[in-house]
Amino acid sequence: LRTGFPEVIWGPGKTPEQIIEIMQTMRQNHPTVMATRIEPEVYEKLSAKIPDLVYYPSARICAITSQTSPPKSQQTITILTAGTADLPVAEEAAITASLCGFPVKRLWDVGVAGVHRLLSNWHLIAEADVLIVVAGMEGALPSVVAGLADCPVVAVPTSVGYGASLNGLAPLLTMLNSCAAGVGVVNIDNGFGAAILACQILRVAQKQQTAP
Amino acid sequence: LRTGFPEVIWGPGKTPEQIIEIMQTMRQNHPTVMATRIEPEVYEKLSAKIPDLVYYPSARICAITSQTSPPKSQQTITILTAGTADLPVAEEAAITASLCGFPVKRLWDVGVAGVHRLLSNWHLIAEADVLIVVAGMEGALPSVVAGLADCPVVAVPTSVGYGASLNGLAPLLTMLNSCAAGVGVVNIDNGFGAAILACQILRVAQKQQTAP
Amino acid sequence: LRTGFPEVIWGPGKTPEQIIEIMQTMRQNHPTVMATRIEPEVYEKLSAKIPDLVYYPSARICAITSQTSPPKSQQTITILTAGTADLPVAEEAAITASLCGFPVKRLWDVGVAGVHRLLSNWHLIAEADVLIVVAGMEGALPSVVAGLADCPVVAVPTSVGYGASLNGLAPLLTMLNSCAAGVGVVNIDNGFGAAILACQILRVAQKQQTAP
Amino acid sequence: LRTGFPEVIWGPGKTPEQIIEIMQTMRQNHPTVMATRIEPEVYEKLSAKIPDLVYYPSARICAITSQTSPPKSQQTITILTAGTADLPVAEEAAITASLCGFPVKRLWDVGVAGVHRLLSNWHLIAEADVLIVVAGMEGALPSVVAGLADCPVVAVPTSVGYGASLNGLAPLLTMLNSCAAGVGVVNIDNGFGAAILACQILRVAQKQQTAP
Amino acid sequence: LRTGFPEVIWGPGKTPEQIIEIMQTMRQNHPTVMATRIEPEVYEKLSAKIPDLVYYPSARICAITSQTSPPKSQQTITILTAGTADLPVAEEAAITASLCGFPVKRLWDVGVAGVHRLLSNWHLIAEADVLIVVAGMEGALPSVVAGLADCPVVAVPTSVGYGASLNGLAPLLTMLNSCAAGVGVVNIDNGFGAAILACQILRVAQKQQTAP
Amino acid sequence: LRTGFPEVIWGPGKTPEQIIEIMQTMRQNHPTVMATRIEPEVYEKLSAKIPDLVYYPSARICAITSQTSPPKSQQTITILTAGTADLPVAEEAAITASLCGFPVKRLWDVGVAGVHRLLSNWHLIAEADVLIVVAGMEGALPSVVAGLADCPVVAVPTSVGYGASLNGLAPLLTMLNSCAAGVGVVNIDNGFGAAILACQILRVAQKQQTAP
Amino acid sequence: LRTGFPEVIWGPGKTPEQIIEIMQTMRQNHPTVMATRIEPEVYEKLSAKIPDLVYYPSARICAITSQTSPPKSQQTITILTAGTADLPVAEEAAITASLCGFPVKRLWDVGVAGVHRLLSNWHLIAEADVLIVVAGMEGALPSVVAGLADCPVVAVPTSVGYGASLNGLAPLLTMLNSCAAGVGVVNIDNGFGAAILACQILRVAQKQQTAP
Amino acid sequence: LRTGFPEVIWGPGKTPEQIIEIMQTMRQNHPTVMATRIEPEVYEKLSAKIPDLVYYPSARICAITSQTSPPKSQQTITILTAGTADLPVAEEAAITASLCGFPVKRLWDVGVAGVHRLLSNWHLIAEADVLIVVAGMEGALPSVVAGLADCPVVAVPTSVGYGASLNGLAPLLTMLNSCAAGVGVVNIDNGFGAAILACQILRVAQKQQTAP
Ligand SMILES: Nc1ncnc2c1ncn2[C@@H]1O[C@H](COP(=O)(O)O)[C@@H](O)[C@H]1O
Ligand SMILES: Nc1ncnc2c1ncn2[C@@H]1O[C@H](COP(=O)(O)O)[C@@H](O)[C@H]1O
Ligand SMILES: Nc1ncnc2c1ncn2[C@@H]1O[C@H](COP(=O)(O)O)[C@@H](O)[C@H]1O
Ligand SMILES: Nc1ncnc2c1ncn2[C@@H]1O[C@H](COP(=O)(O)O)[C@@H](O)[C@H]1O
Ligand SMILES: [Mg+2]
Ligand SMILES: [Mg+2]
Ligand SMILES: [Mg+2]
Ligand SMILES: [Mg+2]
Ligand SMILES: [Mg+2]
Ligand SMILES: [Mg+2]
Ligand SMILES: [Mg+2]
Ligand SMILES: [Mg+2]
Repeated sequence: LRTGFPEVIWGPGKTPEQIIEIMQTMRQNHPTVMATRIEPEVYEKLSAKIPDLVYYPSARICAITSQTSPPKSQQTITILTAGTADLPVAEEAAITASLCGFPVKRLWDVGVAGVHRLLSNWHLIAEADVLIVVAGMEGALPSVVAGLADCPVVAVPTSVGYGASLNGLAPLLTMLNSCAAGVGVVNIDNGFGAAILACQILRVAQKQQTAP
Repeated sequence: LRTGFPEVIWGPGKTPEQIIEIMQTMRQNHPTVMATRIEPEVYEKLSAKIPDLVYYPSARICAITSQTSPPKSQQTITILTAGTADLPVAEEAAITASLCGFPVKRLWDVGVAGVHRLLSNWHLIAEADVLIVVAGMEGALPSVVAGLADCPVVAVPTSVGYGASLNGLAPLLTMLNSCAAGVGVVNIDNGFGAAILACQILRVAQKQQTAP
Repeated sequence: LRTGFPEVIWGPGKTPEQIIEIMQTMRQNHPTVMATRIEPEVYEKLSAKIPDLVYYPSARICAITSQTSPPKSQQTITILTAGTADLPVAEEAAITASLCGFPVKRLWDVGVAGVHRLLSNWHLIAEADVLIVVAGMEGALPSVVAGLADCPVVAVPTSVGYGASLNGLAPLLTMLNSCAAGVGVVNIDNGFGAAILACQILRVAQKQQTAP
Repeated sequence: LRTGFPEVIWGPGKTPEQIIEIMQTMRQNHPTVMATRIEPEVYEKLSAKIPDLVYYPSARICAITSQTSPPKSQQTITILTAGTADLPVAEEAAITASLCGFPVKRLWDVGVAGVHRLLSNWHLIAEADVLIVVAGMEGALPSVVAGLADCPVVAVPTSVGYGASLNGLAPLLTMLNSCAAGVGVVNIDNGFGAAILACQILRVAQKQQTAP
Repeated sequence: LRTGFPEVIWGPGKTPEQIIEIMQTMRQNHPTVMATRIEPEVYEKLSAKIPDLVYYPSARICAITSQTSPPKSQQTITILTAGTADLPVAEEAAITASLCGFPVKRLWDVGVAGVHRLLSNWHLIAEADVLIVVAGMEGALPSVVAGLADCPVVAVPTSVGYGASLNGLAPLLTMLNSCAAGVGVVNIDNGFGAAILACQILRVAQKQQTAP
Repeated sequence: LRTGFPEVIWGPGKTPEQIIEIMQTMRQNHPTVMATRIEPEVYEKLSAKIPDLVYYPSARICAITSQTSPPKSQQTITILTAGTADLPVAEEAAITASLCGFPVKRLWDVGVAGVHRLLSNWHLIAEADVLIVVAGMEGALPSVVAGLADCPVVAVPTSVGYGASLNGLAPLLTMLNSCAAGVGVVNIDNGFGAAILACQILRVAQKQQTAP
Repeated sequence: LRTGFPEVIWGPGKTPEQIIEIMQTMRQNHPTVMATRIEPEVYEKLSAKIPDLVYYPSARICAITSQTSPPKSQQTITILTAGTADLPVAEEAAITASLCGFPVKRLWDVGVAGVHRLLSNWHLIAEADVLIVVAGMEGALPSVVAGLADCPVVAVPTSVGYGASLNGLAPLLTMLNSCAAGVGVVNIDNGFGAAILACQILRVAQKQQTAP
Repeated sequence: LRTGFPEVIWGPGKTPEQIIEIMQTMRQNHPTVMATRIEPEVYEKLSAKIPDLVYYPSARICAITSQTSPPKSQQTITILTAGTADLPVAEEAAITASLCGFPVKRLWDVGVAGVHRLLSNWHLIAEADVLIVVAGMEGALPSVVAGLADCPVVAVPTSVGYGASLNGLAPLLTMLNSCAAGVGVVNIDNGFGAAILACQILRVAQKQQTAP
């Protein structure tokens, strides 16, 4: 299952020792092993024991990759954010997608309150193979993007906001109620899950091509 | 208080007889008397006793106006809806505003899932004195409009939608979380309240002009 | 946008006359026009004016199709339900997908409380190109299926249930919290939206194949 | 857009270095640049690099203003709070309004539990051009004030309270349900947004005056 | 327990036959028997079998009283409502209190959006022995009244309102968060419970007087 | 208003300096001044400047009392708690009541899971003038007590509990739904408000006695 | 699975024809077939086709039983309700348990507001093998009973109540927060599920006895 | 009541001194005394005064046991977890059950996203006397297990998860809505309560055996 995707460890609630042990075991059978939600000070402790561990600070991901990592896909995952504060979630998606072997295009800070900036990047949306759209607060970006795009949109609500954003529930509801069809929603702040879904969407095409 | 605005009766939970009695009493001292949320069959009963009662079916409003109704303002209230189903709420706002003496421009069905249709009406938004933006489901239209407009935006969530729209709570939250500043939100389906707020905004300018 | 997909009318809150008028207008420019959430008695009125209108009662969909309807795809959409009561939502998805030109495989009543029945259909899940999984009450089926499948899963919560199901909020939350990655969630009872997302996923592959 | 208003940076989730960089860039093109939700220790770090940065501690705002700051308006924004604990939110509104060029009148601690204190300031409400009303706990002040005032009321719920105040949801609901029309509501603790809306309301009048 | 208070039957969910049987049994041992939430057509059926049954239509209460009903108290229960739509709940309280032997003063339609009307009845509040304050929508009246009064306030939220009133949850939260101390809250629409609490408050004084 | 009751300062969100200043000002006109939610380390700072300040650690209250404090009432406030963890809230009520001049009887740890312990104190409940019942978790104690008592019950939900107690919302709802009439509910953890309400209930009797 | 228990059909959302067909099919392999939530008019239609169908109106259950129905257990299920309105849910549990072969003891109307009536039946609780406790409104009965009982308690919240009972959510939360251990909670109004759990609890003992 | 079960102290909100005192008092009359939710540093302080205190770190329980501890039951409690993060809750259940005298079988990390791992342990479920199933996030494991098992299932939702898991509310709702009958639910993270319920279920069988 999930053939060719990295093995993943969910960092929160695990001690550095536990993470090290799991990583060491997993790497024996898998070309790529990654852990998410890893703070810098945890990475310090991990890298003391796993020297070839790579850290992606803005994504809070660390990973062991190997020679046998998957060849790069020709199809691309295009990731958009509404604001700068959504960046850690978007980077979690971006690095996960890269570790799965898919190239990533990033378009940050194109929230709907300044719709011209979004529209001036219209070609990026029109040409996309699959889109990941990350937004907090009112979470309206996926609706607008899905109306412009002709490909599947993976929508990621974030906990960015305050008061009536209810820790991300408001943008989550916005995305589920999208008038534009073609939107699949994942959990609040779940950049990782969005990337896996996007990669699996692109793999449908890959399998099709390699089929006899 | 609310000088120059019509007297208003909230229809639900009142018998036709009660509405007739209140209207007859009020008209003795006020040039305009209106009632909201009046279904056609209720209007039939009212008009039997109040022959000069006018009915606005799409707004579910009926009103008695008089010769001394307020002169038309030069400033206009521009009303937008995301979808056709938002129309009753938008018309409640439009007719209320008209009865308060303000001209209304209507722009229906410009929801964010088809942002080009909205943008092709860009001049209407740019020239507006005050905007009322009505939207259900994801309720994202006020955010986009407030980003484009340089005037106050009154946002009205509607109960149009299903499932995760939670009878209008989802678009209400969306509007409260708007990244674009300059948005004031009213209760779900409250077209009447939106119109009164918009009229009061325009009256600030009127008072200013008539001040010595 | 949405090239090749049918034009769609959301039935609720529209009179039969309005639906007839919109359908007649749309059919002039589109090979397929469909309307959702159409009760049988509404269909009776519609078909009096549109003789070639086809009705799919279990899906509550009616549609006009034409000679130029899209050619059948080679890829299939596999649809699962947890219980019989989820059938109307699943059929809304199935008929929508068919009208978009994609063949559908149906697997009804394989809820997690009888996991052996699900597992005895394991090959259907393993071979799927894309899955739509429809479930109410506890909404656990998409998690189990996503763990078995190696393709994208579109999860549709339904309002089937009572009490703590909170009209579909409970299965919605279940699906958003799925431990298994590769799941995109749509609104409660939104069979139509699930089908469009699934079709768009398969079109990624189609575009890829037709690319030079 | 928002011509003549300051450029604004939302402080939370940004490092001092990021804020400094953004401010330095913005000041090149804008007469006024401000940042909100800045704690004193953050200000210390900012002012080391931006010597002309001014700090307003009770508002948690810091700002760079220039010679070309906007001329003072003749119209005034009147701000009321229900309790002392609402002061930071009210000051965020007051300083934002000042930086936009509008004079501010402050009336603190006139909550509805002591309605006589509010009524003894009746003239301030009657004469107001636009009102911002800030309240936590039961959030009843905007309703009472809107009943007394003949101008638009911008209502700001605060997270002041405990238990059933649900971090500001209770006063938010109160304000949305106001019986008195003419109230526009913003997000919980959103003093900044309230000020921008009030300024935009007064600018409607300004534009009107300067129109030919 | 509850010595001297009527026996009460909660009407909803009981057939007329069941209500008749319970009433006939109870009247053998109690001077006063009452039933709440009784619609007119149910009363018709009850009175056919219980000829001395009295109906209070605005309170939806019917009652059997006897010669040995309690002597009138000297202390009075003062009941206020915010709007006309709150009347059925307030009358449920008023009739219940009367049947318990306490005189009632009624003050209807003194909601906070017109605070002058409330204040012009200031003496009624100042002189009250105990107050019941009934309000829907924003539910702000009990806070204002408790600030004016020097006696206990029983606050009753009603389900009057729409949208963000959440069927009475909004005014319930408002009342629980009241800044003014001395307020006890009962369930939404619970006029009966409010009256019993108010009567029990006045009985504390009665017992005190009759103590040796 | 609130004649004869102490002046009260709500501690949270005020600096020690602010509390000292308010207390010093208030004591000039009031025989008793108290502050609630005062942690021990805050008291240390306050007492350095106000030597006659008394601290009640279990109630987190500090107070200045004077010779002219109110004479003791003959009527008593009886306070019950369900568990030991409810004690701080109950003591806040007890000390507030004492400072208002009312004697207090305490009955701790008589939760409904051990109903025999409650019943063995039956006489305390039967003889009570007014009851304050404090409970967290399921919050069932006020219902049982109100069924046993023949006097008003003030119910105080506490935030004691975890998970589905939702920080006190669960016991709050329980108390509002009490089948037993004669229960008035205050905000979560609001021991102070419960005491003021109870004192005001007893004052109804006091006024009655002193009336001519 | 569920060996020896009846086959069950959940009535809502199925046509009489569908129910008849499922029942006819099931009865070929199972001694007992039952359907829940069957209104009288549905039963009329069913019995026309299935002459030996038995209807239990207060439980809204209909069932086909056969000669080979399970022998009566020696252990008993004791069912309690707080109020009369909880009876349909309790009867659903009682009839289900009977059809599973377990004798039932019923104790109705022993809610906590009259705790003496509950205690006068103390022996029934003390001697119980397993208890099902059904309660709406505040839902406090299972806590009190679990404190008295020395056997497992299955708690069933009901949707009986109004306002803050939130259609049964309030008693559901109460039961989940029970201070008394030994309580397992099922969904709102789920009398059927409670009975199956209780039967399975008693079967643990049966299996034990029949084990070698 | 709860004869033969340990006396239990709920640790949170108690000082080490208080816990020591309660333990010392309780041990005089009870063979086993335990405290839950005890962090390691608290245990250090306790064990300084109670030398024979045993600590179970993964369960956060400490206990005093004696010679007269209950003899081991022949029936076993089988405990399953969905993920590793659910372990502390599951161990709280396991240690509690052991201290009650029941042997425990543990099956960790068999969540539904990898249903084959669960099924390969099928015999453990089929043979179980009673099951405790612990799961966070989507909380789907109890439904699947209850479908496989022929014994009672005690379901424990945990607060493991983020975003839409709402601190454990999502898995709680999932478990309450389980399609598979025979499931009793306890509060979020309540491993202790689950164990007591499971032990009481097994004691039904024990009592039966020892009955004459
Ligand atoms: N459609 C409406 N939406 C919201 N508020 C309304 C509406 N119609 C009337 N109202 C308010 O209801 C008040 C009249 O209520 P009533 O006295 O019950 O007729 C007016 O002062 C308005 O503020
Ligand atoms: N069953 C359905 N569920 C969700 N969305 C739908 C459904 N049917 C139609 N729609 C959406 O509603 C839009 C048409 O709405 P309308 O213009 O009101 O007819 C379409 O573009 C679809 O995106
Ligand atoms: N512990 C408490 N719980 C609830 N309300 C309180 C408490 N202590 C003080 N108050 C209220 O807070 C008001 C004083 O607030 P402040 O002016 O902010 O000090 C008093 O009039 C009381 O009504
Ligand atoms: N971990 C736990 N989870 C739930 N309830 C517990 C737990 N530990 C103890 N309790 C309950 O708390 C009661 C003791 O509470 P206390 O008297 O505050 O120590 C016991 O009778 C148990 O029913
Ligand atoms: Mg699209
Ligand atoms: Mg704007
Ligand atoms: Mg998968
Ligand atoms: Mg006004
Ligand atoms: Mg007062
Ligand atoms: Mg009582
Ligand atoms: Mg027990
Ligand atoms: Mg089972």
